[in-house]
Amino acid sequence: MAGKKVLIVYAHQEPKSFNAALKEVAVDELSKQGCTVTVSDLYAMNFEPRATRNDITGALSNPEVFNYGVESYEAHKRRELAKDILEEQKKVQEADLVIFQFPLYWFSVPAIMKGWMDRVLCQGFAFDIPGFYDSGFLKDKLALLSLTTGGTAEMYTKSGLSGDYRYFLWPLQHGALHFCGFKVLAPQVNFGPEYSSEEERKAMVASWAQRLKGIWKEEPIDCTPTWYFRE
Amino acid sequence: MAGKKVLIVYAHQEPKSFNAALKEVAVDELSKQGCTVTVSDLYAMNFEPRATRNDITGALSNPEVFNYGVESYEAHKRRELAKDILEEQKKVQEADLVIFQFPLYWFSVPAIMKGWMDRVLCQGFAFDIPGFYDSGFLKDKLALLSLTTGGTAEMYTKSGLSGDYRYFLWPLQHGALHFCGFKVLAPQVNFGPEYSSEEERKAMVASWAQRLKGIWKEEPIDCTPTWYFRE
Repeated sequence: MAGKKVLIVYAHQEPKSFNAALKEVAVDELSKQGCTVTVSDLYAMNFEPRATRNDITGALSNPEVFNYGVESYEAHKRRELAKDILEEQKKVQEADLVIFQFPLYWFSVPAIMKGWMDRVLCQGFAFDIPGFYDSGFLKDKLALLSLTTGGTAEMYTKSGLSGDYRYFLWPLQHGALHFCGFKVLAPQVNFGPEYSSEEERKAMVASWAQRLKGIWKEEPIDCTPTWYFRE
Repeated sequence: MAGKKVLIVYAHQEPKSFNAALKEVAVDELSKQGCTVTVSDLYAMNFEPRATRNDITGALSNPEVFNYGVESYEAHKRRELAKDILEEQKKVQEADLVIFQFPLYWFSVPAIMKGWMDRVLCQGFAFDIPGFYDSGFLKDKLALLSLTTGGTAEMYTKSGLSGDYRYFLWPLQHGALHFCGFKVLAPQVNFGPEYSSEEERKAMVASWAQRLKGIWKEEPIDCTPTWYFRE
């Protein structure tokens, strides 16, 4: 939709990968709609995943015992967070929709993307206590996980070896995104592209592009445990 | 138990933290039993969380399109993985029990520990296809998550805002540890130490030490979805 802003947080090492193709088609389709699209290409940026003292540029509020949560909260208030964190927070602040594009690593995001969540979505910026879940600070924004799996769709069913794919979405969609207030759109799960034919992979990319055409009319998912565990 | 080997993978920035106290008491108690205890102090090691081309020291099997999973699998066979990965794999290989000690970040491990999982537990070392879940390569080993939460115990109940604490354990215990074959012992979950009194925190540390006295007699948890979602 013309005028909308989209941030794509992207974690793949290879520009010729299937994840890259999904990211590219999203950039193309959303740009064609008149959206402003920004990509945070985490590997290309060599994004720092470790949450350390280096994330606070000024003095610590308690130099005796380092508490990352407390210090990043205080540093946020004083605008003394590391430059890379501030830059990502600015991109999030401006976005109407944040898309996370990644290959599933151990039922979760790759460490480099986990580090983005750990460091960027800090207290004071993304939430406060109180001020989380439905009252999280990012509550006027949408978020969407677009991912690829190693396993097949059959493995990720209720009776499959890896369980329903919704199970592994809980920590990411509920524990992180919903906690910060994001309205979560249905995930785009691409099962086993490595086991698929070139034709099937092209169909997956086309299907993602097609979905994005109507993305601004979508309703967020039900954000209760029911969606994940009891449907 | 005398003769047993334990690896503690530890992720906290601060030696005076509550997580450090839990790690320390585990080292003390297990050493007292005659176990050999090794600690991987990830922040002190400045452990690399990013899965990149740097993890393969030799030539790539496909330099045209970089696929981390494929390349780390091949590099494992040729003994051409980065030195830090080989060192951690050696520690895992020798261990009878691996304890993960960490503060919960976004319903999961901190990125630095996610990176340890992403990089160390590679195909060929920890599993193969086939050769996963009950036949994962680490099937003669025990694993245990010892963690602290920001939220209180009430938040992590079925009707609490954050849902049953077992929900967020699924990706870690099932998707990662069980996938590699580990027998998973019950997690040691310390709820909200920051909201607790000094006395309560001391009781949590003592309770952990007490549990470790009988750790070698414990039975692993039921590793089906029932344990996580339907009890």
